[in-house]
Amino acid sequence: MCCFVGHNSFSVRSHTCGELRSTHVGEVVTLCGWIQYQRHGMFIILRDFSGLIQVLIPEDESRAKLKEFCDVPVESVVKVMGKVRRRPAGQENMNMPTGEIEVCAETVEVLNVCQKLPFEIKDFVKKTESLRMQYRYLDLRSSQMQYNLRLRSRLVMKMRDYLCNKHGFVDVETPTLFKRTPGGAKEFLVPSRDPGRFYSLPQSPQQFKQLLMVAGIDRYFQIARCYRDESSKPDRQPEFTQVDIEMSFVDQAGIQALIEGLVQHMWPDEKGSVSTPFPSMTYEEAMRDFGVDKPDTRFGMKLVNVSEVFDSTDVPFLRDTFRQPGGCVQAICVVNGAKHLKSKDLESIKQVALKTQYAEEVSVVVVKTDGTWKSPLGKMLPESVKQSVHQMTMAQPGDLLILAAGQQDVVRPLLGKLRLYCAELLEEKGVALRDPTAFHFLWVVDFPLFLPKKEEPGELESAHHPFTAPHPEDADRLFSEPHKVRSQHFDLVLNGCEIGGGSVRIHNASVQKFVLEKVLKEDSSLLSHLLEALASGAPPHGGIALGLDRLLSIIVGASSIRDVIAFPKSFRGHDLMSGAPSFVSKEELRPYHIDVKWPAAVEGTEQ
Amino acid sequence: MCCFVGHNSFSVRSHTCGELRSTHVGEVVTLCGWIQYQRHGMFIILRDFSGLIQVLIPEDESRAKLKEFCDVPVESVVKVMGKVRRRPAGQENMNMPTGEIEVCAETVEVLNVCQKLPFEIKDFVKKTESLRMQYRYLDLRSSQMQYNLRLRSRLVMKMRDYLCNKHGFVDVETPTLFKRTPGGAKEFLVPSRDPGRFYSLPQSPQQFKQLLMVAGIDRYFQIARCYRDESSKPDRQPEFTQVDIEMSFVDQAGIQALIEGLVQHMWPDEKGSVSTPFPSMTYEEAMRDFGVDKPDTRFGMKLVNVSEVFDSTDVPFLRDTFRQPGGCVQAICVVNGAKHLKSKDLESIKQVALKTQYAEEVSVVVVKTDGTWKSPLGKMLPESVKQSVHQMTMAQPGDLLILAAGQQDVVRPLLGKLRLYCAELLEEKGVALRDPTAFHFLWVVDFPLFLPKKEEPGELESAHHPFTAPHPEDADRLFSEPHKVRSQHFDLVLNGCEIGGGSVRIHNASVQKFVLEKVLKEDSSLLSHLLEALASGAPPHGGIALGLDRLLSIIVGASSIRDVIAFPKSFRGHDLMSGAPSFVSKEELRPYHIDVKWPAAVEGTEQ
Repeated sequence: MCCFVGHNSFSVRSHTCGELRSTHVGEVVTLCGWIQYQRHGMFIILRDFSGLIQVLIPEDESRAKLKEFCDVPVESVVKVMGKVRRRPAGQENMNMPTGEIEVCAETVEVLNVCQKLPFEIKDFVKKTESLRMQYRYLDLRSSQMQYNLRLRSRLVMKMRDYLCNKHGFVDVETPTLFKRTPGGAKEFLVPSRDPGRFYSLPQSPQQFKQLLMVAGIDRYFQIARCYRDESSKPDRQPEFTQVDIEMSFVDQAGIQALIEGLVQHMWPDEKGSVSTPFPSMTYEEAMRDFGVDKPDTRFGMKLVNVSEVFDSTDVPFLRDTFRQPGGCVQAICVVNGAKHLKSKDLESIKQVALKTQYAEEVSVVVVKTDGTWKSPLGKMLPESVKQSVHQMTMAQPGDLLILAAGQQDVVRPLLGKLRLYCAELLEEKGVALRDPTAFHFLWVVDFPLFLPKKEEPGELESAHHPFTAPHPEDADRLFSEPHKVRSQHFDLVLNGCEIGGGSVRIHNASVQKFVLEKVLKEDSSLLSHLLEALASGAPPHGGIALGLDRLLSIIVGASSIRDVIAFPKSFRGHDLMSGAPSFVSKEELRPYHIDVKWPAAVEGTEQ
Repeated sequence: MCCFVGHNSFSVRSHTCGELRSTHVGEVVTLCGWIQYQRHGMFIILRDFSGLIQVLIPEDESRAKLKEFCDVPVESVVKVMGKVRRRPAGQENMNMPTGEIEVCAETVEVLNVCQKLPFEIKDFVKKTESLRMQYRYLDLRSSQMQYNLRLRSRLVMKMRDYLCNKHGFVDVETPTLFKRTPGGAKEFLVPSRDPGRFYSLPQSPQQFKQLLMVAGIDRYFQIARCYRDESSKPDRQPEFTQVDIEMSFVDQAGIQALIEGLVQHMWPDEKGSVSTPFPSMTYEEAMRDFGVDKPDTRFGMKLVNVSEVFDSTDVPFLRDTFRQPGGCVQAICVVNGAKHLKSKDLESIKQVALKTQYAEEVSVVVVKTDGTWKSPLGKMLPESVKQSVHQMTMAQPGDLLILAAGQQDVVRPLLGKLRLYCAELLEEKGVALRDPTAFHFLWVVDFPLFLPKKEEPGELESAHHPFTAPHPEDADRLFSEPHKVRSQHFDLVLNGCEIGGGSVRIHNASVQKFVLEKVLKEDSSLLSHLLEALASGAPPHGGIALGLDRLLSIIVGASSIRDVIAFPKSFRGHDLMSGAPSFVSKEELRPYHIDVKWPAAVEGTEQ
């Protein structure tokens, strides 16, 4: 923090608590801070955001007056004026950056007395998360939360420097009171004073960023507040922040290079260095090797397709699998899995598989010291098959093999999930599988442009959003075989989490209209302003959005994005400090021409 | 713009159109841009954000193929590769920064064809504002709007640099889905999925910024999106942006010095320099001399209290005025007003006065060449009185005097309004009263802490907000004579517009409770989280919020804040491009447990 010029500018203090060193000995300083604790009725440990300092209440005639200072409750706010002096020999505290010195108080002013708090402001005091949320203003005093928020500010500033000062991007604020997008089921509504008319809080500035390209802004970015009404998903917030970027006259490689430079520029020194370019794999490769489109590449345990080995077996469920089109047998090898995992763990693996409803086709095989299989399957299969599986998966005695048979598009995600589950299990046992200080960035590219709708597999929906351009190699197929078209969408993955998604956009109005009307069967009139804009001299353009909360939570090693947000909502979307959302009187709803429709069970009790 | 390193980084272009100069002669360049116009079937003027460049379609064998390029409609997007060459002698255009050179095209690619547009993209083409709003993506192509948005981005970046890098402020994002504040009639509501419960979009991060001080963040800032449902006021937007700042351990002077430094640091070179410290006047002085709390100090025409002169007159309406407590006679002298203003103008001045319903007590007096008054009042008043008025107001022959009699708190705002109105009238006549390139910053300080409620003058309401601290000199009066207490609130005024308001806050829980409960008679339980925070070791703190949109509109000389916002709403709060706010089906309202209450007149027609 010492690189800042003016932490004390315009302030009534002369120094922060944490910045004092032996070089300050002899200086008269004015400090402001919180009483962390007191010792022996003569020392006060004073804290501010920058650290701790020991204040001595001297044993002289002024002691009587200063004495009462020692009776002020902890977390009270005080102002101390005094001289910095070296601590007496032997009393230094080398665990404390200011531990060589202390401030000998001359005057002390109590600025605010603190009441009894619901929890102590000590890093080692464990609090429930709901208590932390309710008293967020106390929770934020912890050194970890101070670090998280200050790092967030610092990294955002560096990103701005890179985009704005180094690459000519224009920071443009786009509206958050906007029009509901077609099918925007996750958009919060905001009633207006026009009867029946509502604004919508957008999930991203997607339309605006594209319109800004049509407007000739050329390079746009925004640290954008976005909204998503999706309380059911874990670790999601109703409002979140994305680093939103769009460029004209750029291709996919250009956007990727921009982001690699951005990450390198903003990366905090204390977290090591990041090398570029980031590795890249196709969606197909990611699904094939890791069973997921956001692979955690910090460890192996890749999926292996062992179908060919089982071609000739007559184990009934395997045979049935092969009869289906797309049927396969795949495996992952958990190295030393048999050594570390107990039968309780193996059972839990099966339970995880069970939840996907394909448990009957999953086998967990212990490869014993002699190379034989501990599994019902072991007896059904000839030795040659087992040997071939060993060869293909490189399984060794002491390993665990997980085999799954079924449709490829079911088997891959299932094994992808079990792979991550096994990694967690092993780490719980103390196996060092993933380096906690490693940051593995990865591009996943060549996503499909459309996917079959879950409810009606005969129809297609956008894999990401309807503005994504088709892959140039597949452009012609758009009109004949849209389901086979790859897109120019790409995801940025960090340690197995998707932290960003970008694409080259459709800039041609007729292509956009075709996608909306013919492929997606949507009412394009709801996007008529965008179609008209594309027909009005839209440049080729593309962009990306990075999830700032997620990215930061990974950098600081937080278990939840709530730990990098100053005032997050609870799992249920509530603000536990203020009680939002809260009840509103009929009177207050009148200007908006709305009425609450109480569910029968609630009626009459809650209002 | 040339200070940027990488306007072309990661791009398919090699240069921007506007950056080419004679130093580039001989270089092969790739440009991307919009066809501004064509000349003689052989020149194309290409435009991007940086400027214009002339592209020559050469008269050689490639001409035939390139010829079709000349038939592409204006505003189409093209990519040109060619060599920079000096224009033939005599063909240079010195009005064009790139006018010494041209690009001799070798290849041309049409990237997107433009349809017929609703208006031409030429700065001299006048468009109605509603057309500009409907096709905002075209309107933003104008050089003025490009300048406005790019300047906005640049100034915000400089403010961040000052706050973050120079003075250790932490950029913290605060929630916009929050709890309704007591009496928050202007807050938009956001229905949640919990029946009857609503979030509210806050008018400012006031509570959060104070809570961050309690949390020990020490120095907070945010370029914050704020919301206000107030469509009735002119030139207001439902969402707007403020530069939001809060500091611990600071006094009013400290905050003011911080802001003076901020303005100086961010101020654009092309707008001259700003000198600090800014002048300061008390609220009482501002009301006394200018009749308004945000005086435009770019010109004089101050209010003069001439009551003493009229003490002894027996003009009936003046006599009646003096009988009332607080009655007074005040004047402004419009220098050369009689010379420039016609009787039609004088009538319009009376009309403006009439709108305040005190017209019968306003006299507009022409001071004739011989020093006599052309006014009914002239005959009623003895010569000595008129002479005294001349002396006090320094009126000269050819001036206009406006006299108003009545209660001081009516007369002052009335004359304050007429003062501004007369300034506008004079400027319409071509009188150079206010320098359009001048920027007059002014602090207005020592506001009253409370004001009588308009509806119930016996009760008090906060002049600004209930968290404002009393003036230290008046602190004791808070408990005895709250209506006489001055506050530690201060406004920043620029050219007669309030562009910011700040204050030192109450940091003592019991003082805050007293203000809420005893003075304002409010239900303090709605702010229990804030009261509890103040009791939990709140540091003394204060802050300010600057209206970014307003500040920028004054800097660029725009008549409306809409000209410095990328996608503003119309006067009625509508987005004319997308049609927001829009109708939403009953289906879509169901998850939020609300129903539209159609006003009888609308029912059945609109849904």
